[in-house]
Amino acid sequence: MGKKQNNQVKEITPMEVDFPQWYTDVISKTELVDYSPVKGFMVIRPYGYAIWENIQKAYDERFKATGHQNMYFPLLIPESLLKKEAEHVEGFAPEVAWVTKGGDKELAEPLCVRPTSETIICSMYAKWLHSYRQLPFLYNQWCSVVRWEKTTRPFLRTSEFLWQEGHTLHETPEEAQEETMQMLNIYREVAEDIMAIPVVVGQKSEKEKFAGAAATYTMEALMHDGQALQSGTSHNLGQHFTKAFDITYLDRNNEQAYPYHTSWGVSTRLIGGIIMVHGDDNGLVLPPRIAPTQLVIIPVAQHKEGVLDKAYELKDILGTEFRVELDDSDSNSPGWKFNQWEMKGVPIRLEIGPRDIENGQCVLARRDTGEKVQAALEGIAEAVRTLLDEIQQNLFDRALKMREEKTSTAVDMDEFKKNLKENPGFIKAMWCEDRACEDKIKDETGASVRCVPFDDEQEVIGEGKCVCCGKPAKKMAYFARAY
Amino acid sequence: MGKKQNNQVKEITPMEVDFPQWYTDVISKTELVDYSPVKGFMVIRPYGYAIWENIQKAYDERFKATGHQNMYFPLLIPESLLKKEAEHVEGFAPEVAWVTKGGDKELAEPLCVRPTSETIICSMYAKWLHSYRQLPFLYNQWCSVVRWEKTTRPFLRTSEFLWQEGHTLHETPEEAQEETMQMLNIYREVAEDIMAIPVVVGQKSEKEKFAGAAATYTMEALMHDGQALQSGTSHNLGQHFTKAFDITYLDRNNEQAYPYHTSWGVSTRLIGGIIMVHGDDNGLVLPPRIAPTQLVIIPVAQHKEGVLDKAYELKDILGTEFRVELDDSDSNSPGWKFNQWEMKGVPIRLEIGPRDIENGQCVLARRDTGEKVQAALEGIAEAVRTLLDEIQQNLFDRALKMREEKTSTAVDMDEFKKNLKENPGFIKAMWCEDRACEDKIKDETGASVRCVPFDDEQEVIGEGKCVCCGKPAKKMAYFARAY
Repeated sequence: MGKKQNNQVKEITPMEVDFPQWYTDVISKTELVDYSPVKGFMVIRPYGYAIWENIQKAYDERFKATGHQNMYFPLLIPESLLKKEAEHVEGFAPEVAWVTKGGDKELAEPLCVRPTSETIICSMYAKWLHSYRQLPFLYNQWCSVVRWEKTTRPFLRTSEFLWQEGHTLHETPEEAQEETMQMLNIYREVAEDIMAIPVVVGQKSEKEKFAGAAATYTMEALMHDGQALQSGTSHNLGQHFTKAFDITYLDRNNEQAYPYHTSWGVSTRLIGGIIMVHGDDNGLVLPPRIAPTQLVIIPVAQHKEGVLDKAYELKDILGTEFRVELDDSDSNSPGWKFNQWEMKGVPIRLEIGPRDIENGQCVLARRDTGEKVQAALEGIAEAVRTLLDEIQQNLFDRALKMREEKTSTAVDMDEFKKNLKENPGFIKAMWCEDRACEDKIKDETGASVRCVPFDDEQEVIGEGKCVCCGKPAKKMAYFARAY
Repeated sequence: MGKKQNNQVKEITPMEVDFPQWYTDVISKTELVDYSPVKGFMVIRPYGYAIWENIQKAYDERFKATGHQNMYFPLLIPESLLKKEAEHVEGFAPEVAWVTKGGDKELAEPLCVRPTSETIICSMYAKWLHSYRQLPFLYNQWCSVVRWEKTTRPFLRTSEFLWQEGHTLHETPEEAQEETMQMLNIYREVAEDIMAIPVVVGQKSEKEKFAGAAATYTMEALMHDGQALQSGTSHNLGQHFTKAFDITYLDRNNEQAYPYHTSWGVSTRLIGGIIMVHGDDNGLVLPPRIAPTQLVIIPVAQHKEGVLDKAYELKDILGTEFRVELDDSDSNSPGWKFNQWEMKGVPIRLEIGPRDIENGQCVLARRDTGEKVQAALEGIAEAVRTLLDEIQQNLFDRALKMREEKTSTAVDMDEFKKNLKENPGFIKAMWCEDRACEDKIKDETGASVRCVPFDDEQEVIGEGKCVCCGKPAKKMAYFARAY
């Protein structure tokens, strides 16, 4: 049995051989997720869900610290509501699931399973908002949404996923813009500080923006295979929806006014990002701040007197501060356990055997570098704390280095194509902001505009001419193939 | 404006006049919930959702402490899966919503929006379980479910509600029964210790049990109007589903075996229970351990120098330990604020004005009794802590007393009907356990068997004869009209 499963570990396809297969192997062998009997729908298993709970916690506490409260709106949205904002229905109608029957009765009006909740939320905001004194509305919802997808990959693109969607109303366009940016910054902060994923942020092109938005802002991460992952978006919706849904209030001048509106979301897709940014050929590598298990204790020669006792004692001590597992199963060898927990991406493995106990020490093995160090049992919590911080930082640094190595610049389409072929990743290039060039680049290379960075991160590449048409261009954009 | 909303507070219909209207007034005026554009679906507003978050937290930490992990299964279930267990489909088919179209395509097989997830979860358990070494499976899911209802009331009966559903597998029937009881006990513990709702527990009749269960256990609470509320159920599912879904594993004797199965759930219905057990004619009364705001600070003469400063200081001090709000709006009078926060059911109101500050004290007003006490500012946290505990205990005691007053015994149908009319509530009566008597009682009185208590809480009422048919009866049951 040990042998058989040991082989299983080895059966992860190396990234270099076949990246999509590597991903599939990792998510299934580590039991993060499984395919369900409903095509395109995934089952999130406990290990995967525990990562999601940690992501939720990190975001939820930041949402609350910035004054947002959670609510819950109906799962089903009447067709007539979905249709109220023209761009929105055009964007979402092709990918919604329709409930046409309730109990044994045909419904008079079909209800769509929410693909996102702007419409139903706006219909309620119209009822609730009366006076400027009530503004801002700062609300969020954690839920699942359904978008009918043709080709799916667990976490990255599935017909159902878990997410949060914030929906806010403000008195002025400036406040709405400030909120949009604040939430983008919170998205980035958690991505970088908690998930150790460096991201580039900026604005989406008209083509890529949210259906119904005035402007969409995004954070984009780069995966091991050089593809980008849109990892969170924050939309300034202007008055598109507030006008369509007739949300009005008495403003400070006692006049009827339409508020300004934002929405913003991150989803279980982030788990795909964590896997593809940090993982390696031995499986998952989880940043300590997001890892369901931060440290696993593996007793060596556990049948020898005192070993298990010491292991339990360590679990008690470390368990008060860290998320700790103790693998005391006697049907598997320590070597098998090492492989298993390595595959699961646990940041630190603590090995403890009879000789270690005699010497008052143990071995701490890092998942990120494979290094092993001796640590005194006295003051072990301090040693673990320091090491977890080091691992967290190292994972971020490593991911940033990878991204930088995979980021290039191009001044014309030849260079653009050459880079994409030889060193796939982000390409920074000038863009005239015309849809025609955007489409042409996509058609010829598969790369899309990921975002146009904000002014303080703008650069002039080459002579400032559009990489596609050669006309003068004001903006540098990040291009990449994307999930 | 102050006046107008002050009147609003007065507009709560007294319970004695019209209990359903009282309930409707309370949930809407306190902004717990609202009606949505989709008939039978509710919007849970921030104040209501914050109560749900506290309920979730209390249960989730107990589930985890007893070894359960969370997962997430698809929202949509293929018709063929729903149909695999005969009793189950019969019970649920009439009330499910059907998705028949995805994007612009008719689906080959209709998908139902989950009314509960036994079927889809069992289809995955069949794939995952191989060996007794993997047992028990101890998993839970937090999600929304849809059951098409004809008449709905927010929290109590809606076409969509939020809940958790635990789904476990075990080697032996004894372990499954132990799990079923353990979870019922956890349900009771949180209901009583956190929500201050005393409950009676016991077994459901064959008629009332979950569709597909071997046995259903329930906790039942009694509302102010004498109606019972089924507040949480725990099902021993035996091998009904594991056989229907062909979940097998190699047991300790190396033979194929079917595991034993449980499921258990509580929902947002509990919020309805909190409202109807503790509320009064002035609005909500929230137990401190579940209240989104445990204490509200209301400055008196807040324009006077030092008042607001002191109020903020108190908020900082108390806010580290309790959930505290400070109402510093200057458009409303303290009196209006008193009424408003009273209606919202906040357990303690802290009043602080210039004279209080001079004397180094403040006023603490209890929501449950209306009493006001002076408290020294020095050591205020300790005083608040003690008072919150007292309020928590008092609410439980009061609810228990109410239940006892509304619990009677009956030896025949005349007494049964008289009691239900004169003092509606629980009726303890002997029951022969025949469906015919159960149906007759329901038809004639509207009361159903709420539960048959466990042996240690059994009593013999009168001469031990069935309240309906007069034949010898072994069991006492709790009867009541119910939500």
